[in-house]
Amino acid sequence: MITLYEQASSGNCYKVRLALAHLRRVYSRVEVSARDGSTRTSDFLAMNPIGKVPTLELDDGRFLAESNAILLHVAEDTALLPEDAYDRAKTYEWLFFEQYSHEPMIAVRRALFIYPERKALATPERLAQLLEGGNRALSIMELRLAAHDWLAGDAVSVADIALYGYTHTADEGGYDLAPYPGITAWLARIAAMPGHVTLED
Amino acid sequence: MITLYEQASSGNCYKVRLALAHLRRVYSRVEVSARDGSTRTSDFLAMNPIGKVPTLELDDGRFLAESNAILLHVAEDTALLPEDAYDRAKTYEWLFFEQYSHEPMIAVRRALFIYPERKALATPERLAQLLEGGNRALSIMELRLAAHDWLAGDAVSVADIALYGYTHTADEGGYDLAPYPGITAWLARIAAMPGHVTLED
Repeated sequence: MITLYEQASSGNCYKVRLALAHLRRVYSRVEVSARDGSTRTSDFLAMNPIGKVPTLELDDGRFLAESNAILLHVAEDTALLPEDAYDRAKTYEWLFFEQYSHEPMIAVRRALFIYPERKALATPERLAQLLEGGNRALSIMELRLAAHDWLAGDAVSVADIALYGYTHTADEGGYDLAPYPGITAWLARIAAMPGHVTLED
Repeated sequence: MITLYEQASSGNCYKVRLALAHLRRVYSRVEVSARDGSTRTSDFLAMNPIGKVPTLELDDGRFLAESNAILLHVAEDTALLPEDAYDRAKTYEWLFFEQYSHEPMIAVRRALFIYPERKALATPERLAQLLEGGNRALSIMELRLAAHDWLAGDAVSVADIALYGYTHTADEGGYDLAPYPGITAWLARIAAMPGHVTLED
């Protein structure tokens, strides 16, 4: 049995739960968080020296960190990772895009609003910068999703699951999705999939 | 024949050249850069909407972006990507670590020093923040490299190539590698590999 060390409100953790749900994997959940210091204990740092969630404990007791590395690992040899070499490479491309150009904007701006302890960091300058960067990321997604159902190839993949994680909560970060009809339709497409779970599940 | 659109001084581009050299792949190079606006032309944005280098043109004319996605694509089915599922997953983990926790610190601080047009952004507060974040990333690498020759598994992989890209120029960003003997030995190990090319090649 695998164990997911996670913070339930984190989109980075939710995307792993969403992938595991679609893959019908059974796993246990342990709530840890930087908010109460439980990711900074020596026990947790021995599992993941960088002290972040999600961290996955495999059934042999070894550990794996980085949300999108976990997605690729659990998706290997399943329908969630394209077999075609180019579609697979585009899946990788979207996963790196998510961590470099999307999450540091859209997840970070949401965190400034929903976690009271971050309020002091929410300066007008920082909020404006994150709004602009997040909209740039959304525009890149819209270019693809205006004309295609899925981000990589012609079927749902971990690229869609990874980007769904924080895009579907973009409104909590003050982003308006109205200018992005392709994204809006894609969000609805994912939410309607059999086996879907929500951030609150 | 594949074509690499790149900026020669960029570590993100260099890591692709380093992988292609080890794989003995023949390719052509086209110099483009945000510095002269050539990554912002409509022609370039049609190849890669995010307007970044490296961008790889495959032999069928399709394009691939994100340096670490390019690394995974060219390494597929070669010795640079471990076959063992866990070692492969750890390779993914280091690649995401590189783009989230290492490059935004170590590459960005170097850029503030080597590109004159960025000088205005090099405030004391920003430099201090990047120094701290970069040293945190180096400490995570040192934990692994103090006891192992390579980052993922027991052979060189694209994880090593990706992290070598900017770690070997960390001094240009004002980082002192003396406290990291494991990293220092690993850098020398990579530089001594047959087929190695330098950032200047």
